[in-house]
Amino acid sequence: MNPHATQTAALARFIVTSRFDTMPPKVRHAGKRALLNFLGTALGGAHDPAIDTAAAVLGPLSGPAAARVIGRNERFDMLTAAFLNAASGNVLDFDDTHHPTVIHPTSPIAPALLALAETHRMSGADLLHALVLGMEVACRLGNAVTTSHYIRGWHITSTCGAVGAAAASCRALALTEEQTVWALGLGANQACGLVECLGSMAKSVSVGNAARSGVVSALLARAGLTAAPQTLEGPRGFVPVMSDAPDPTRLTTDLGEHWEVMNNALKPYPSGVVLHPVVDACLELRAQQRIAPESIARVRVRGNPLLAQRADRPQPASGREAAVSAQHTVAVCFLFGAAGVAEYRDALTADPIVRDLGGRVSVDADPSIAVEGAQVTVELTSGSTHTATIAHALGSLAAPMSDTQLEAKVRGLAVQHGGDVPVARLIDTAWRLDLLADAASLLDLAA
Amino acid sequence: MNPHATQTAALARFIVTSRFDTMPPKVRHAGKRALLNFLGTALGGAHDPAIDTAAAVLGPLSGPAAARVIGRNERFDMLTAAFLNAASGNVLDFDDTHHPTVIHPTSPIAPALLALAETHRMSGADLLHALVLGMEVACRLGNAVTTSHYIRGWHITSTCGAVGAAAASCRALALTEEQTVWALGLGANQACGLVECLGSMAKSVSVGNAARSGVVSALLARAGLTAAPQTLEGPRGFVPVMSDAPDPTRLTTDLGEHWEVMNNALKPYPSGVVLHPVVDACLELRAQQRIAPESIARVRVRGNPLLAQRADRPQPASGREAAVSAQHTVAVCFLFGAAGVAEYRDALTADPIVRDLGGRVSVDADPSIAVEGAQVTVELTSGSTHTATIAHALGSLAAPMSDTQLEAKVRGLAVQHGGDVPVARLIDTAWRLDLLADAASLLDLAA
Repeated sequence: MNPHATQTAALARFIVTSRFDTMPPKVRHAGKRALLNFLGTALGGAHDPAIDTAAAVLGPLSGPAAARVIGRNERFDMLTAAFLNAASGNVLDFDDTHHPTVIHPTSPIAPALLALAETHRMSGADLLHALVLGMEVACRLGNAVTTSHYIRGWHITSTCGAVGAAAASCRALALTEEQTVWALGLGANQACGLVECLGSMAKSVSVGNAARSGVVSALLARAGLTAAPQTLEGPRGFVPVMSDAPDPTRLTTDLGEHWEVMNNALKPYPSGVVLHPVVDACLELRAQQRIAPESIARVRVRGNPLLAQRADRPQPASGREAAVSAQHTVAVCFLFGAAGVAEYRDALTADPIVRDLGGRVSVDADPSIAVEGAQVTVELTSGSTHTATIAHALGSLAAPMSDTQLEAKVRGLAVQHGGDVPVARLIDTAWRLDLLADAASLLDLAA
Repeated sequence: MNPHATQTAALARFIVTSRFDTMPPKVRHAGKRALLNFLGTALGGAHDPAIDTAAAVLGPLSGPAAARVIGRNERFDMLTAAFLNAASGNVLDFDDTHHPTVIHPTSPIAPALLALAETHRMSGADLLHALVLGMEVACRLGNAVTTSHYIRGWHITSTCGAVGAAAASCRALALTEEQTVWALGLGANQACGLVECLGSMAKSVSVGNAARSGVVSALLARAGLTAAPQTLEGPRGFVPVMSDAPDPTRLTTDLGEHWEVMNNALKPYPSGVVLHPVVDACLELRAQQRIAPESIARVRVRGNPLLAQRADRPQPASGREAAVSAQHTVAVCFLFGAAGVAEYRDALTADPIVRDLGGRVSVDADPSIAVEGAQVTVELTSGSTHTATIAHALGSLAAPMSDTQLEAKVRGLAVQHGGDVPVARLIDTAWRLDLLADAASLLDLAA
């Protein structure tokens, strides 16, 4: 590596010269898992009101209908399809999470590649390779600006996602190193998204833009549209502008040795991560002690102070609030033995039985418990008590979902979607991604 | 006004309730001047390589060809047309400047309205009204984040322009107050653009995005896509996130009483503003003293330290560099009696006569001279010297271009464009803008 190269140039060279055959098998497998998880969450979110609204507005303005959207029937130009797929993948807050930065990397990046795969023939291995490279760039950029970036108010998935999507698109289009420098710069120059908008539909617009901007950046750079040579680390570039404690060296340290996709976790439940050990504990108690909901006098939840801070939320008024409510979550676990998308639908928050059981749940903070742990104690009307303790919630880096559990999650999201997606074939095809001659065949199954 | 209303809500109410008939005539006239100036700069920039490249990439992805681009023959969907018109208007750095913030407000905002006018019937008065309102919002947002916003590295024309374009589009589409709150939020959530990219073609992409995002924001909000209620001033909103010394009260102080368009100036020359008093001085000397270039032994320029800092640049290598070179600027003034777009073309920087005369120019800093002033002294080979002193450069707020001078600028840009635009009719139509039944008729003349 040229010692005078800037970080932007070093990342560009890495993207251009990376080889799939020397990428460790566990890295490739982590990439496949991220993609499969994304296909599931995009199916589940495909008919969210935010996605329906955006599709209705953007559809009449779309160019030639060359690209498909997961879980929907329409076709759009590839930029619009990339936008909608990214928004769908993220809208349920059920997509993957890069733990060090809280970036959800696959939603903005995979859609850029799927859109390109429709018009630029690409093998499954090419798509997987480009996806892992895009995730690497997005997460390294996140590392360089975290934690002040998110704390200040940048929606890191949207901002870093735009650059990651540009990186992935460059690889997919086989751009030169110089063009890749420009495309990374164009992605950085289009990075946007405010934390203020989380909780409103506006979130979907910046996540969608990230994927769209990534594709546009690569296409413009390929055509010769230039950007500054150091748009990531330069004095008025992404890293110093968007962080109060920037560390640009993290863009390139151990590049090609350490892979950020190994720090990417998949959520087993569509609720706030602080609630995941609570779900594990409740489901364990319900299964092992065969606890009938009507026999419960009281449920006491103990967890890290973050749990009480974010999720001690009695009587939530919507599904979105319920997803960060310990009361609702404990109730549905004991009532239905599950805490999936169906258990967080709006209607269920008004159910008197759910509200009644939720009313018997209390939350205590215990700083000795880690964020990924929790303790749940059930007091029965008979007077007996049962306790379950979880050290590492399912879906944490220490206790990742198994491939089988991931498949079950995707099947559940396909049910949530309600269409006739051949989910078994989709899952099987995703696992065989690196053997597919045409990556777009994923969309034959998912769209 | 409800004292509990947030600033975002107050701006939305202002946009919805503002009346054209109570807008002061001088404000309306300033709006017309800004629009006419924009039509000229967009004509002049319409075939810049950045615009040609973007049009070539975005054209094949464009939706129904409903909207025209100034100075070009193609039609695009209205989002793409808004993008290209904004990029064209700004690409020559010859568009208007809101002095307190250095925002170039018309380039991102007028194109949003022109694109909407093609499909949503709008009178000339409606367009002018919406333009002034959009400029008001963009510049007030700039006031709330300046000066740290630009200094840190945000390209303020692009970032604030997106919100201004959203505001203008809301008015043009007659959105409700609630929808306007959402659209302002969606604009803020899409605001992007880094100073690092200035000097590269990437600048055009964020300026283009600003116009496009403004239209998209209004269309999405009209369809019910929500945003946070305080996306401008909320704790993780645009103002606190994008400024190190935010003052959100400036969003609404004296709203409807003081108009920011009155702080908007038009550039007579396509060079850095620090050079404008130098141009005035050289042209005065040339005309009054009939100085022949070959008789010049030496030229000494004195100006504010900013002049030396930014423009003491001997032997520039490109037209873009020449536009911030005192040496090149002085040379072309004496050689050609002009410092217009033609005098900053790339080829001229290699001309030995220009380089030779430029080599005889020196620049001295004098803190007692204001940024808008300069002194130029010519020493002739005969031994005599002549000095011209300019206090307020043409185009500064204290010495604005006259309407006649503005017309001459637009005619010059039409010549630069080289096409067969009926420029006299275009100018006449722009002055009668508030009487036009259909604002899109401007594009019958300019496209």
